[in-house]
Amino acid sequence: MTAVTDEPTAEELAQLDELYADFAAANMAPLWTQRGGLMPQTPSPHAVPALWRWSTLYPLAARSGELVPVGRGGERRAIALANPGLPGTAYATPTLWAAIQYLGPREEAPAHRHTQTAFRFVVEGEGVWTNVVGDPVAMRRGDLLLTPGMHWHEHHNTTDHPMAWIDGLDIPLVRQLDAGFFEFGPEVLSTTETPAASRNERLWGHPGLRPVGAPAPAASPLMAYRWEHTDAALAAQLELEAEGHPGVVSPGHAVVRFTNPATGRDALSTIRTEMHRLGTGARSLTTRVAGSGVWQVFSGSGSVTVGDETWDVGTGDLFAVPSWAPVTIRTDGGLDAFRFSDDPVFEALGLARTSVEDGS
Amino acid sequence: MTAVTDEPTAEELAQLDELYADFAAANMAPLWTQRGGLMPQTPSPHAVPALWRWSTLYPLAARSGELVPVGRGGERRAIALANPGLPGTAYATPTLWAAIQYLGPREEAPAHRHTQTAFRFVVEGEGVWTNVVGDPVAMRRGDLLLTPGMHWHEHHNTTDHPMAWIDGLDIPLVRQLDAGFFEFGPEVLSTTETPAASRNERLWGHPGLRPVGAPAPAASPLMAYRWEHTDAALAAQLELEAEGHPGVVSPGHAVVRFTNPATGRDALSTIRTEMHRLGTGARSLTTRVAGSGVWQVFSGSGSVTVGDETWDVGTGDLFAVPSWAPVTIRTDGGLDAFRFSDDPVFEALGLARTSVEDGS
Amino acid sequence: MTAVTDEPTAEELAQLDELYADFAAANMAPLWTQRGGLMPQTPSPHAVPALWRWSTLYPLAARSGELVPVGRGGERRAIALANPGLPGTAYATPTLWAAIQYLGPREEAPAHRHTQTAFRFVVEGEGVWTNVVGDPVAMRRGDLLLTPGMHWHEHHNTTDHPMAWIDGLDIPLVRQLDAGFFEFGPEVLSTTETPAASRNERLWGHPGLRPVGAPAPAASPLMAYRWEHTDAALAAQLELEAEGHPGVVSPGHAVVRFTNPATGRDALSTIRTEMHRLGTGARSLTTRVAGSGVWQVFSGSGSVTVGDETWDVGTGDLFAVPSWAPVTIRTDGGLDAFRFSDDPVFEALGLARTSVEDGS
Amino acid sequence: MTAVTDEPTAEELAQLDELYADFAAANMAPLWTQRGGLMPQTPSPHAVPALWRWSTLYPLAARSGELVPVGRGGERRAIALANPGLPGTAYATPTLWAAIQYLGPREEAPAHRHTQTAFRFVVEGEGVWTNVVGDPVAMRRGDLLLTPGMHWHEHHNTTDHPMAWIDGLDIPLVRQLDAGFFEFGPEVLSTTETPAASRNERLWGHPGLRPVGAPAPAASPLMAYRWEHTDAALAAQLELEAEGHPGVVSPGHAVVRFTNPATGRDALSTIRTEMHRLGTGARSLTTRVAGSGVWQVFSGSGSVTVGDETWDVGTGDLFAVPSWAPVTIRTDGGLDAFRFSDDPVFEALGLARTSVEDGS
Repeated sequence: MTAVTDEPTAEELAQLDELYADFAAANMAPLWTQRGGLMPQTPSPHAVPALWRWSTLYPLAARSGELVPVGRGGERRAIALANPGLPGTAYATPTLWAAIQYLGPREEAPAHRHTQTAFRFVVEGEGVWTNVVGDPVAMRRGDLLLTPGMHWHEHHNTTDHPMAWIDGLDIPLVRQLDAGFFEFGPEVLSTTETPAASRNERLWGHPGLRPVGAPAPAASPLMAYRWEHTDAALAAQLELEAEGHPGVVSPGHAVVRFTNPATGRDALSTIRTEMHRLGTGARSLTTRVAGSGVWQVFSGSGSVTVGDETWDVGTGDLFAVPSWAPVTIRTDGGLDAFRFSDDPVFEALGLARTSVEDGS
Repeated sequence: MTAVTDEPTAEELAQLDELYADFAAANMAPLWTQRGGLMPQTPSPHAVPALWRWSTLYPLAARSGELVPVGRGGERRAIALANPGLPGTAYATPTLWAAIQYLGPREEAPAHRHTQTAFRFVVEGEGVWTNVVGDPVAMRRGDLLLTPGMHWHEHHNTTDHPMAWIDGLDIPLVRQLDAGFFEFGPEVLSTTETPAASRNERLWGHPGLRPVGAPAPAASPLMAYRWEHTDAALAAQLELEAEGHPGVVSPGHAVVRFTNPATGRDALSTIRTEMHRLGTGARSLTTRVAGSGVWQVFSGSGSVTVGDETWDVGTGDLFAVPSWAPVTIRTDGGLDAFRFSDDPVFEALGLARTSVEDGS
Repeated sequence: MTAVTDEPTAEELAQLDELYADFAAANMAPLWTQRGGLMPQTPSPHAVPALWRWSTLYPLAARSGELVPVGRGGERRAIALANPGLPGTAYATPTLWAAIQYLGPREEAPAHRHTQTAFRFVVEGEGVWTNVVGDPVAMRRGDLLLTPGMHWHEHHNTTDHPMAWIDGLDIPLVRQLDAGFFEFGPEVLSTTETPAASRNERLWGHPGLRPVGAPAPAASPLMAYRWEHTDAALAAQLELEAEGHPGVVSPGHAVVRFTNPATGRDALSTIRTEMHRLGTGARSLTTRVAGSGVWQVFSGSGSVTVGDETWDVGTGDLFAVPSWAPVTIRTDGGLDAFRFSDDPVFEALGLARTSVEDGS
Repeated sequence: MTAVTDEPTAEELAQLDELYADFAAANMAPLWTQRGGLMPQTPSPHAVPALWRWSTLYPLAARSGELVPVGRGGERRAIALANPGLPGTAYATPTLWAAIQYLGPREEAPAHRHTQTAFRFVVEGEGVWTNVVGDPVAMRRGDLLLTPGMHWHEHHNTTDHPMAWIDGLDIPLVRQLDAGFFEFGPEVLSTTETPAASRNERLWGHPGLRPVGAPAPAASPLMAYRWEHTDAALAAQLELEAEGHPGVVSPGHAVVRFTNPATGRDALSTIRTEMHRLGTGARSLTTRVAGSGVWQVFSGSGSVTVGDETWDVGTGDLFAVPSWAPVTIRTDGGLDAFRFSDDPVFEALGLARTSVEDGS
């Protein structure tokens, strides 16, 4: 063997060129020329920290409401957040899809189902019901609504005003894995009932109580997590902190995770969903996780640092956090934010890693 | 070998007697003489179906309140249901302990902890707080309160009236296994606070919401299951049935199981706890399970058949169900009943078996 | 309330007597008079440390071979070790049954199946095949053979000499739980084949290799653990120790646990099975576990201390270890011992506890 | 809203163009124009069925052995199979990396460790030891050797002849997830010992036997699966089939899966590894799975159909199977093949799906 580090001769270089050409012709590629890019010492995402302002998103969604119909084929009037570091895609991060969906007065979105896991989170408005496997689920400000994989779902706006919300899905992950199946359902709504509480909530929405006659599916049987409960849970954590008791993740920072009541695990198999509340004057720990996430400010305002970017943020603003990018959130008057991430994927595959920096 | 079935001779019988005597001297015992008793074709419990009436229990408990102090050593003024089929014990079934505990005005029961898993269920009254690892938990009608194994606990009556409730424990199981450890705590109450909601409820009592800052222990982190939630969950099942939707276990029969919100599994590792509601005119399926249980009527009235016994029952009445005894409950005006059982033990050991008979 | 500790008056004592009589009449029993016995501070087993010598057991078994037939009803010529602390039972410990089973030349034991979990361990001899669900399994010195719950099994001696082995079952546990079901099978053997290796071994007996076409049952699919593998695994641990590498549980003490290759967990759901080897001059750590066990010396000799008892032991001798009794084994020339215990029950129910004392 | 399906006017088209431009400026992308591509009705992989012949691969690897050194930075002389459907990558499938690695006489590859899970499979030759966390593991024909995530590893050829083998890793998956961490180790080998069996095999390589003194890590503790065991297990399945007993996955088709002996689950958390044997004249079922895989013929010859491609294959030939592509293997004289796939990822995320077609 001739070591190429010993100044290869012209002949050796020619042999090497020929070897690489033969590799290419044989559909082969050497590791040694690309090892560092393929296997970096720490995650080096193409995705970048990115911000989308609600004040931009919402008007664009409303304009599409004027120009673009909802119907079979396109299926949904949803506009995705496209991470600038992932050009040519419509992905917020390498694993997560985030979009604003807009449904005009009296509009309907037809039934379909798919492998991809989905949720809706409502930052403002109400009046739309999403029927999940025929069970009508009201959508209201602050609610998290689930559509686990292969659950039929359709939406309908029962009011004379439009409504918009955030969709989160694992489309990029499922696309990358070539794991997706998709089916179209009937054109006609399965139901037009508009109950205040869905049947799944009535069965499963009682703390610690399992309905023995309703067998638990693999996915969460609870499809709606209502703001009144989320708000109460976050408030309790900060009150307990004020009383000197544990419960917050760090000073002034309360977090609840949305879970499957039949297992206590993440509500969705591929997407973690959480609500964060920072109290007056609070600052989160600076945290890195292996894996990516998307946040949406739900109420209040503050400042967010993701890697080298710092933004002032307010209600409805969304931002993407690439893998291993440090995140810090600060607020003067208090801030509530919804977060979703691919943590369950990392945990299921033994890839989870977290680093918390004091940063003070 | 001489087959004893071929009319053994006198000599053979003498040899056999000598053999059995030598077995006994050697601390040995033949299987063949006792196989049927040790390994019956179906469970043949010593425990029998048995009923205890609240109208008997409560006055006896009250009399003990006059005569017997609560204090170190005896620890609790609790009077156990002793199954007549298990003489010499104070066991309701071979695995379960059930007792009425009585705490007089302003009385305290001192702190201790033990391997045995415990719960309290309140059929009437209020005014006592049980402090579980220093967290004061109010006890009120219809509530289920947990004390998982090795959790410090103490009780105190903050009122001028007595209060009684049901204790359930796995004392017989733990005694049989020689698994028990017990520790005495301080004589002085860890706290005299009397909050409406305990800290564990404030953290964990929100449906499907997990407090991220409060690591879940092996046992249930939720110690109190409040009647308002249980009642609402049972009512919803019967309403869904009336609307034509699934949810009940059989016509007119709603059931919720108390579960650990961090895992979705039974709230206690060795004891299943459930609340049953039979609607007006309902009749349960006739069901046998391998394993034993104890029921207490919480409200309403009806008739219960356990094996060959049938009793009319009303509020507070308790009955024990031996392993594999068929149980049927009937009611005209509706009936709520609390049930606890050793099902989790049978499931954990691969011994669970159920048989449902139509019985119509 | 009158405190009885303040020297009760004669009237009070009479009232108390009347109360206790009324308790008894109502099938009730006070906790406070028996709390210490029911809930001791550490396990206080009725079972005692006990030794059974092979030199006693085997001749008694042989005598029963002359006098007692094997047949339907008694089912097996098995003679149990009856713990002197558990009079009136045939239990080695509160959860475990241990017996010597003896099968004469050309004898057969007919098919049955039962809830109870069983194994055979062979301390000497060979020539019997046990058919487990129709799969003939040779029994040879040092082998562990399984019969998980509800597996049909029958034995037949294909030789002109008798054979004896140890049976282990969870009969006491299942009896206490009232969990047992038992079925008789056909009188005629399912097969008289005598292959060297059973079909389950041929499918599942390859290290780390799972047969994809053979779905794994809940119980272990591997029914035979052969001495050649056990011996090699123990030898390797001591060799690694001599080379300076980890692997032994303590100096000179090698242990392997028999596991279900489909799960890596205990081979049987209610009984732990292990083989221990102490090297020349070795002494085990002194260990207490919550839960009981039975040991049989397989080869070599040594001295065993269980609680307050110390015995010199040799091949075939068995001893019972009550819950929480400290065990120490010493040997000059080396000693192999088989151990079985109820550890999996304790682990499944959250009751496991271990204490290791240096004891030096 | 104006329905665009009703022949949009020129003005509407202009408004739509403007809307789409504004989307792009805001880093947004509409779902409705790309829904079908993102969420196809069945998986529509970019990866294609592809074949690499050993007769091409090996000489190219040997030429690189002349021209390219092994050393720090490039780390390994490994040449990857680059799927023609995934241009610009060196990926065999969207989740799997497959490469031929070549180590010249007396060469060493320096220590490193990484998040990526890796294995080696040896189709010919011997003489290299891979040290995994300091434990030297011989590599010989037919062996599967593991390097779970974050395990230090290094290779050294102890002979005067070169050796080549196949590396499999989850590099594409980990790259896509931005999950990778990588560390360089010392330049000097941790050990130059060349034992026939590694320490992990001596502890864990006994069927169904768990070393109690060696705590099981999260990853498989067994790093080497030897051909003698794999061969025997496959042979046994075909023999059992010939005797009329179950065990094969379909007529003439035996399969073993390499598993973690401490859990019975896949040996690696993100990669399934299996060995297949088709007997004389056998034909596999035609099977589709959601997820991708790579096969290497180990011995024998036959014909393989993947989707629309059919190839004659022999020893050493590799082929990639995209998600949901039907695979059929036929052989006249018998064929052994190693398969690895991303099945564990699909199972962990709830995305697994299989379809078997008779195809006769």
